[in-house]
Amino acid sequence: MTAKLYDLELSGNCYKVRLLAALLGVPLEIVPVDLAAGAHKKPPLIDLNPFGEIPLLVDGDLVVRDSQAILVYIARKWGGERWLPTDPAGLARVAEWLMVAENEIAGGPSDARRHDRFGYDLDVAAARKKARRILGLMQIRLVQQPWLALDRATIADIACMPYVALGHEGGVPLDDYPAVRAWVDRVKALPGFIGMPGL
Amino acid sequence: MTAKLYDLELSGNCYKVRLLAALLGVPLEIVPVDLAAGAHKKPPLIDLNPFGEIPLLVDGDLVVRDSQAILVYIARKWGGERWLPTDPAGLARVAEWLMVAENEIAGGPSDARRHDRFGYDLDVAAARKKARRILGLMQIRLVQQPWLALDRATIADIACMPYVALGHEGGVPLDDYPAVRAWVDRVKALPGFIGMPGL
Repeated sequence: MTAKLYDLELSGNCYKVRLLAALLGVPLEIVPVDLAAGAHKKPPLIDLNPFGEIPLLVDGDLVVRDSQAILVYIARKWGGERWLPTDPAGLARVAEWLMVAENEIAGGPSDARRHDRFGYDLDVAAARKKARRILGLMQIRLVQQPWLALDRATIADIACMPYVALGHEGGVPLDDYPAVRAWVDRVKALPGFIGMPGL
Repeated sequence: MTAKLYDLELSGNCYKVRLLAALLGVPLEIVPVDLAAGAHKKPPLIDLNPFGEIPLLVDGDLVVRDSQAILVYIARKWGGERWLPTDPAGLARVAEWLMVAENEIAGGPSDARRHDRFGYDLDVAAARKKARRILGLMQIRLVQQPWLALDRATIADIACMPYVALGHEGGVPLDDYPAVRAWVDRVKALPGFIGMPGL
């Protein structure tokens, strides 16, 4: 049975799930969610996910919330060791950057874009400051190696790329971070890559 | 060779690493870091971790940053499938709550405590609001089942417990969340449990 993704086209968190599925050739049934109407805060969605957020993946009886956790699930179920290895060092390396996506990038370029693009009430100066810090750290990393976690693309790259590449929609363009720009281009060149609006 | 943990006694993020190691019976060499003197922002630490943060684990040639990623590493290296299973559903379930520790709890009860206890300049009202939201969601979960992710304690519980249990130090006590309080007590009753100041 095809897994179902509750989705919003303009969400970078939903996009990263669609992107990994496309790279792996895993078909998903896309269910668009009307966020403007608050569908994510009402039944049936709120019963599936009390957090009231998307993306949400439903695979048979299993419901997975949080975009990074969904990447973990898809990579383990359909991707073997390629996109998420299970040896201690490999898994930890990928986990480090999943946490960056969940913390520094969510609170940085993603929050800045939520403010500028969607009118969320948040401290956009603080979000841009966080964005510049993490972009600087990614620049240091990506000068040394082509991919964030390992010697190949992993879900670390898929988790971190969207909101970094959408930074210009939150006033945090990548002009000063050439190694980050080159990395975004490497992700875009992966076989099976799909885009999203603004990318 | 014993792995080395760059540590601060009062950090909940450092404590969770010490706690998992204690539960697994893994010896760690504890290296106290003088945060007040900015030791985490200077060599040799800044060379090991450009993020300038602790905890930091050094195991032979491998350096792991981020408390959640360090839990992943220790669980995989020394804990078999017990604390972090590698099947798709099990790993995703645990990952969902590692992400809660990294996002909602870091930006909620942890930030509120950083403000109240250590004087950090941040929006404490926003942090307390985030704290109450995630405590309410954890209460819903823990009314239904004894542990956050699976039918047993996993690193999901170890990752989420410290800053929740320290909530009173940030003006977010657990009085209204009895199932969360009972869960904290279950963690405290695990064989090999160790505490930290304030807990």
